[in-house]
Amino acid sequence: MESLKMCAEALTQLRCRAPRVHCITNNAAAAYSANVLLAVGATPSLSLAEQEIGDFVSTADALLINIGTMDAERDRAIELALGVAQKESKPWVLDPVMVDRSAFRLKQAKRLLDVGPDVIRGNSTEIDALATAVGASGPAGLAKCTGATVVQTGVTDIVCRHGEAVTIQNGHPLMSRVTAVGCAGGALVAAFLALQHGAFSAAWEATLTLDVAGEVAGSEARGPGSLQFGLLDALSGLDVDQFAALARIQWLDQEATRTLGGLKPGDSV
Amino acid sequence: MESLKMCAEALTQLRCRAPRVHCITNNAAAAYSANVLLAVGATPSLSLAEQEIGDFVSTADALLINIGTMDAERDRAIELALGVAQKESKPWVLDPVMVDRSAFRLKQAKRLLDVGPDVIRGNSTEIDALATAVGASGPAGLAKCTGATVVQTGVTDIVCRHGEAVTIQNGHPLMSRVTAVGCAGGALVAAFLALQHGAFSAAWEATLTLDVAGEVAGSEARGPGSLQFGLLDALSGLDVDQFAALARIQWLDQEATRTLGGLKPGDSV
Amino acid sequence: MESLKMCAEALTQLRCRAPRVHCITNNAAAAYSANVLLAVGATPSLSLAEQEIGDFVSTADALLINIGTMDAERDRAIELALGVAQKESKPWVLDPVMVDRSAFRLKQAKRLLDVGPDVIRGNSTEIDALATAVGASGPAGLAKCTGATVVQTGVTDIVCRHGEAVTIQNGHPLMSRVTAVGCAGGALVAAFLALQHGAFSAAWEATLTLDVAGEVAGSEARGPGSLQFGLLDALSGLDVDQFAALARIQWLDQEATRTLGGLKPGDSV
Repeated sequence: MESLKMCAEALTQLRCRAPRVHCITNNAAAAYSANVLLAVGATPSLSLAEQEIGDFVSTADALLINIGTMDAERDRAIELALGVAQKESKPWVLDPVMVDRSAFRLKQAKRLLDVGPDVIRGNSTEIDALATAVGASGPAGLAKCTGATVVQTGVTDIVCRHGEAVTIQNGHPLMSRVTAVGCAGGALVAAFLALQHGAFSAAWEATLTLDVAGEVAGSEARGPGSLQFGLLDALSGLDVDQFAALARIQWLDQEATRTLGGLKPGDSV
Repeated sequence: MESLKMCAEALTQLRCRAPRVHCITNNAAAAYSANVLLAVGATPSLSLAEQEIGDFVSTADALLINIGTMDAERDRAIELALGVAQKESKPWVLDPVMVDRSAFRLKQAKRLLDVGPDVIRGNSTEIDALATAVGASGPAGLAKCTGATVVQTGVTDIVCRHGEAVTIQNGHPLMSRVTAVGCAGGALVAAFLALQHGAFSAAWEATLTLDVAGEVAGSEARGPGSLQFGLLDALSGLDVDQFAALARIQWLDQEATRTLGGLKPGDSV
Repeated sequence: MESLKMCAEALTQLRCRAPRVHCITNNAAAAYSANVLLAVGATPSLSLAEQEIGDFVSTADALLINIGTMDAERDRAIELALGVAQKESKPWVLDPVMVDRSAFRLKQAKRLLDVGPDVIRGNSTEIDALATAVGASGPAGLAKCTGATVVQTGVTDIVCRHGEAVTIQNGHPLMSRVTAVGCAGGALVAAFLALQHGAFSAAWEATLTLDVAGEVAGSEARGPGSLQFGLLDALSGLDVDQFAALARIQWLDQEATRTLGGLKPGDSV
């Protein structure tokens, strides 16, 4: 319960402080990601122009890099944005969308891993592809190998860093039937990162927030269309009572956390 | 009724098999097209990057090419995607958006016609511009001349190939008041094409599916906003009973089909 | 009341004449801007391709230039579009999105000011940055210095040109929690400009229309998601009775208008 209060408190902070989150994301996800950020009180920006991306990252509180659509302009934008983020210690999230679908994408994702994201967020296929690429296994392996916090989404979401892990069993099946919900989840992690209270806390709080809001919205939705906007409504009104009533989050002990390293995609925890 | 069962069965197949549909489409339509595909159970992808579009098309089951926004990147993406689609016999749909508004666009659409789309889908102004450009007249003329199945949307939708045609009188006026509904209709045809049961069947089934879902959503909508998400809800829940209750589809005999060649834009059938 | 009838009449004209509005806008705003235009009866187009943008602007009735995302392609598109707009006297709107966030953006916005937009629309931070850049102060100063009509959005919206101003106190707090509502507001001004009854009338009518529709939608919304689609529903159904019941618009006298020049961002009028 203490942790749920912390999560609700983080949401309150977002609404008060309206941190700026710069998103380099795919075209299909840009608008919905911006709307998710606005729904929790954050301030999104989306520019990719090489002449100004430095200014935007420099005045932002956190950065999202989502590789859902790649092109020369985004390549350059990512390079410049990460240069500034590293220099000015801005926290950032990597969302390796569909990294399993092309060799080119996997190569790029690996290069981004080398820069050191604070959080990596993907589904089990994506996390597995990335883990394999760095010679590790499962989300805990990837976390250990990269030093990042890893969020692996699925029926059960897993959030782990070296030696620590939680599982979250909230959400709704319709969430995977709306494009950009996952991508917006990465943007949400960036918003929580902007609060500067640690990557692991930011990652599980953002994940729990999205999942509980999705569960609230899903319980009233008639289909993916109403889930899409209902999720925004739910996010904007989420409070500690809803967390208390709905959250199914579990902290794993060291032993259980260690076994995450060997989890296969699709395994339940 | 037999044909309506076939259509419902195709929808069931989409939900079970989740075929991959790669969409090269315009920026304004990307998210909604992805959501329409997800609503019927298909798996969308949208990459335009020349380094990986081959991989995406190669692992996709069907391809959509929508020329709603054109640029150098899309030009190159289309060229590469069609190269793979031809080599690996992937079915594809051409949506010649606003081909009547610019000479450049018409020239590009003609070049795409030469590659041989399985289905061409447009409104009567677009189909007429394309038919005229190849020296034909109306949707049946365009179908005969290109060998493609042609879907001409309007108050009455016409789906025809050489010697065969159906008309569909479903839908709702609000559908034309929401951007990307037409573009998403092209993506939907690609999803049905992915089932590999013939271009003509795919085209009328997809058209009927969109129209009936639009009619269901339109009957409850308070305006274009609620139509937009209601259409996604309706698509995700559509069943054979709704087809049976609502479908107004008519198979034309040879004589009537032949006269389609001479239809002018706006003519009713 | 007479002016509210004029505003309702302008909306009727939009629905009857369906003017074409070409939008050069940012990726996150493209779809929603198109939907707002469709909701009031206008016909949007969004192409950025240098080979055809001239054709699109030439056959359009008004033009929007929104600098929310900038890149080389948009730079070139803007240059070509404004060339045609000037030559053919097409009215156009400038939306200097986040012009305060980067020096590059401010430089571009200043160059666009030199071409002479009919209307400039931004929030108080943006208008202030632009006014300062041309050595003026506040919306009235910017209007006087540029000859444009200026719309400054906020809790109270201000619409002014040299020697004339109105304030509008409609709208809903949720409107600023949905991405692209502001950007779509710029597109709406362009739609009203297309009616060719003067930039000042177009600017306040469009602003009042968006604000009243937002207020109608906001009163029923459960959060930003339902505001987003409810605004489209409200726009499509807006009538003179709603304007009469809700509009809080005030014409300022010369003295009050003059003081606008010295307003600081955030000042109420």
